[in-house]
Formats: sequence, C-alpha cells, structure tokens
Amino acid sequence: MADAPTKSYQPINFVQKYGLFDEQWQPKVVAELNDYQFKLVRIEGDFVWHQHPDTDEAFIVLEGELRIDFRDGSVTVKPGEMFVVKQGVEHKPYAAAEVKMMLIEPRGVPNTGSAPGERTAANDVWI
Amino acid sequence: MADAPTKSYQPINFVQKYGLFDEQWQPKVVAELNDYQFKLVRIEGDFVWHQHPDTDEAFIVLEGELRIDFRDGSVTVKPGEMFVVKQGVEHKPYAAAEVKMMLIEPRGVPNTGSAPGERTAANDVWI
Repeated sequence: MADAPTKSYQPINFVQKYGLFDEQWQPKVVAELNDYQFKLVRIEGDFVWHQHPDTDEAFIVLEGELRIDFRDGSVTVKPGEMFVVKQGVEHKPYAAAEVKMMLIEPRGVPNTGSAPGERTAANDVWI
Repeated sequence: MADAPTKSYQPINFVQKYGLFDEQWQPKVVAELNDYQFKLVRIEGDFVWHQHPDTDEAFIVLEGELRIDFRDGSVTVKPGEMFVVKQGVEHKPYAAAEVKMMLIEPRGVPNTGSAPGERTAANDVWI
C-alpha cells in the first residue's frame, strides 16, 4: 500500500479574514511572499496625500469601488480589478462607501508613506 | 478657476485580460510591482512536479478550484482564496476543470522552476 499524503493545508480565505476585524484604514497582513506582504484593509472616506519613496504599491479591489486620486487625475478600481501606484507618485485613496481591498508591498511600508501622522496605522499586524 | 485634474487612468481588469487569450498553462504578465510580476493564467489538468529554489510563489484563485499537491499533502484553493508556496517546496498544481488564477512572483521566474521541459512556458509575456 502506498503512503498517501495526508496533510491538508489551509488556504487564506478573504471573507473569513474580513470577519475578524471591522476597523477601517488598518491594514492586516494575511500572507508573505519573500519580503513582500499581502494586506487586507477596509477603507471608507478620504485619506491623506502621500507617496512611497522606495516602492511601488499594488491595490486589488475585492468589494466596493476605490478611487485613487493623483495630482493630475484619478483611477477608479472595482472588484476584479487592480492598479499599481508607482514609486514616488503622490496619491490619495478615496472610497465613497466601504471598500475591501488587498495591498501588496514590501514588508515595513507604512500606510501613509511620506506623510506620517494621525492616519499612520500600526504596521506588520497579522490576522 | 482651479485646474481640475483631468487624466483618467485605467485599472487592470481581469475579465477583460482573460478575454485576450484562451491557451492554458501560459502565464501572461498584467502588472509589475518593483521587480515582481502579476501573471494571469488558465490551467486545467495536471502539471509537473517542480520547486522554485530562489523564491516563494503566490497563487490567488479567481475562478474554479485549484489543488496544489505537495509531497506530504495538498491544499485546495477556491475563488476568494490564496496560498503561498514557500521557496524550495516541491509542488504540482492540478485543476479538474479550468482554473483562472493569478500568480505573483519575481520577474523572470519560470513556470516549471527546477524542472524545465516541454511544459516550460515563454516568460515575461505581457497582455
């Protein structure tokens, strides 16, 4: 009789993870890929203008409609869509109603980038 | 009168991108984040055992049910779920019916990793 593989690994389920927190603008790490992190976040309303001087930042929208404002325009990102804000580009996320989205960026990148302040969230918080 | 920002940036829409190709097991790059790439791929059936000696590999399932076999078990990943295969871990993706999924990994990583052969896809193909 062959040895059957028996270990059942668990995927990361986004709905299950969102069931673990309600607060907005507080990214939660759910996975790491080398030195990059996948973070789930709820956002609603306006954020602060900021940029990330050392890295690009990827947004994948899971629910709701995200608008990212730039100094010269904007992009609207819906479920099933993504956008990458390039390193050093000033941006301001906005959500008229709550958006659930995934951020992907290197470990240690603060949510407010170049503009630390009262909107700066705790970093590297796992759920 | 203030200068209104006028540029309308376009998000990356997964359904639109999948409309551009039918072939399976041929990852298509849709975005870059620093030196990492986001690739959309269709898979169906069995793949080859391989591992990536230098990097983790992230799988996000968009449609269908992905099984990743390991030497000691497996994980099933459904839409709204993800899994990260750690560097050096032997794995073999499998899909009973077609799966649409996103791969995230550093630029230049071949799909067959340590096991190049007839299943090795062209790399760095953008759509």
